[in-house]
Amino acid sequence: MALLVQKFGGTSVGTTERIEAVAEKVCRFRKEGHDVVVVVSAMSGETNRLIGLANDIMEEPTPREMDVLVSTGEQVTIALLSMALQKRGCEARSYTGSQVRILTDSTHTKARIRQIDEQRMREDLDAGRVVVVAGFQGTDENGNITTLGRGGSDTTAVALAAALKADECQIYTDVDGVYTTDPRVVDSARRLDRITFEEMIEMASLGSKVLQIRSVEFAGKYNVPLRVLSSFQDGGGTLITLEDDDVMEQPVVSGIAFNRDEAKLTISGVPDTPGSAVGILKPVSDANIDVDMIVQNVGADNRTDFTFTVHRSDFKRANDVLERVAAELGAREVSGDSKIAKVSIVGVGMKSHAGVATTMFEALSHEGINIQMISTSEIKISVVIDEKYLELAVRALHSAFELDKPEGEA
Amino acid sequence: MALLVQKFGGTSVGTTERIEAVAEKVCRFRKEGHDVVVVVSAMSGETNRLIGLANDIMEEPTPREMDVLVSTGEQVTIALLSMALQKRGCEARSYTGSQVRILTDSTHTKARIRQIDEQRMREDLDAGRVVVVAGFQGTDENGNITTLGRGGSDTTAVALAAALKADECQIYTDVDGVYTTDPRVVDSARRLDRITFEEMIEMASLGSKVLQIRSVEFAGKYNVPLRVLSSFQDGGGTLITLEDDDVMEQPVVSGIAFNRDEAKLTISGVPDTPGSAVGILKPVSDANIDVDMIVQNVGADNRTDFTFTVHRSDFKRANDVLERVAAELGAREVSGDSKIAKVSIVGVGMKSHAGVATTMFEALSHEGINIQMISTSEIKISVVIDEKYLELAVRALHSAFELDKPEGEA
Repeated sequence: MALLVQKFGGTSVGTTERIEAVAEKVCRFRKEGHDVVVVVSAMSGETNRLIGLANDIMEEPTPREMDVLVSTGEQVTIALLSMALQKRGCEARSYTGSQVRILTDSTHTKARIRQIDEQRMREDLDAGRVVVVAGFQGTDENGNITTLGRGGSDTTAVALAAALKADECQIYTDVDGVYTTDPRVVDSARRLDRITFEEMIEMASLGSKVLQIRSVEFAGKYNVPLRVLSSFQDGGGTLITLEDDDVMEQPVVSGIAFNRDEAKLTISGVPDTPGSAVGILKPVSDANIDVDMIVQNVGADNRTDFTFTVHRSDFKRANDVLERVAAELGAREVSGDSKIAKVSIVGVGMKSHAGVATTMFEALSHEGINIQMISTSEIKISVVIDEKYLELAVRALHSAFELDKPEGEA
Repeated sequence: MALLVQKFGGTSVGTTERIEAVAEKVCRFRKEGHDVVVVVSAMSGETNRLIGLANDIMEEPTPREMDVLVSTGEQVTIALLSMALQKRGCEARSYTGSQVRILTDSTHTKARIRQIDEQRMREDLDAGRVVVVAGFQGTDENGNITTLGRGGSDTTAVALAAALKADECQIYTDVDGVYTTDPRVVDSARRLDRITFEEMIEMASLGSKVLQIRSVEFAGKYNVPLRVLSSFQDGGGTLITLEDDDVMEQPVVSGIAFNRDEAKLTISGVPDTPGSAVGILKPVSDANIDVDMIVQNVGADNRTDFTFTVHRSDFKRANDVLERVAAELGAREVSGDSKIAKVSIVGVGMKSHAGVATTMFEALSHEGINIQMISTSEIKISVVIDEKYLELAVRALHSAFELDKPEGEA
């Protein structure tokens, strides 16, 4: 019999009926003999309602009081879920982040977990109780209430699983697992039975919003087996683990991720001197604009072209900053394009396989798609293309890497 | 400069606009140089909303989880009020019952306060901060969240005032003080500047629902000066204190209280043996029916008549119990009347004044009002009369004891 940490998000506990359904599911695991710790979020809509109240009073409420306020959302859910479990004869006890001593630093609204005292949970589990813990929240050394930031309930679940050395951390959500790509774009997209932490991080950061990237990193660091599965339908979901040495051959590419939220900016004819990259990027980051891909080509006449992507909503501001920078550095011109998309192939298999990039570029070229930028990491290759070719590119790559075939056959 | 504990109830903090108004008021006291600890209830309607959620899941939710659930109500208010204070440049910090270590016993949903650690509040006050504390809630020795039961925020305020040795505990409410009687019944009813704890307890238990009786007892025990005043209009309110020896002459009667929620039951011709009172009352209390006034007359033939009042909603059940008891004891008959009212005069002054009862009975007789039952305590005389004479009786007594005249002149 296993020790399971199960996390249910806001949609899964959005009404008292849904809370009852969660209780039903948890009870079933308990009756099979598993020890269960449940982590829950606030009922969907509740956190926004609370933030609305705060904003009635001030635009930028103090972070300490914001945490006192929004942490009530999960506290309501733990009480209601415990009642629903008890109603089913399933002994249960609820705990806020403070009560179960999820010790964090004091960075209100985005605190980081430092330590968890698992003793109290262990006693309840030994007594046969389900432990119901409020996600997203903790306490600092001085007893102040802290929160981990949006989506922090996933992190709570992983941290509890690590502290308790749980057999599995199960994240219940509104999708039934991690797919080779977005099923809305590619009909034959397939749910993956397994994926590695590294792959999941690359997929998540590219827009597959199944899991908080921080919780995946956390799970990888402490080697907590993480499973994504559906609250609303049965099925084994997707297991996220360390690279499995037992599997003879990893698939070369596990999935295709994409993102249409970016825009591209180029500053051309920059005098190619040491420090020119800093001269360009520092003013951008000083303006609180996040930069994603960066590409620099050495050009002729000791001048260089420098291209990077930013979130599309920052495009206008980034352009203004660059115009100023260009004048200062004596660059030739600034150009930009907000009608772009980024497509990436992700897979630990590519570490040991040559020719993956070739396959990718051939597939795109075969469809007549021009590649505007390229960026690579050990387990990922990303390209920037014209936005209008996005779906075509994703489908071509999904097929080129045979992702529509069942695992093991590829 | 004084140390004040100020309590604002659910109506006073019912919307964010009202919370801003409370912040405005608190800031004013702070700027005058007072140290202020504020105790708040849940926003009006919020506690009922939470109870509604619980009842969606089960009819009788477990008390421990109920406390986890409803205690979120005040937690929301402390955060919002602290924000509203900070917005006005008034430094403030919020605390839940657990955080400020309001230690209670473990009787969930109606816990009693055992101890308060005032150290943390003291540090904030010394640093010039307003301390905002969630009313109605505490923590037991094992860190479980407890609540003090409905109206418990008044008790929290008094307990904090006692622990901090505050100069005054101010209860802000929707009335501007304690009146000589209900102004809706007697036009000339007058707000009292002062009243003693004992008088207030008698007034409160008789239906003047201004303050929780428990908080008045608590204030009396620890000699915390308690002031009732309006959240919505300015004015000095009513100060509730120990009997003031400096005042040369206490008014004989301070107020007229009344209650129409009772019904009267008589069991006649009961054989007058030792233990007959127990034989009658035990079955009533075993049926969970509270008894208020009790009157027994010795009659003829070793038989006695026994009359008592109960809450009107218990009338039918109490009558059924009595019919059974009458048969068992060999009593003659059971009769009852639910169209009665109780009127009481209350005043510490009557301890040292003879003739108060005479004045009362004369005033009623003068109006042709028949007295059905009489019961007295050291500072109170209550009579039961026909319900239809209630307003007349209250007006007659208010005038007979010259309560419409300003204090000092009576």
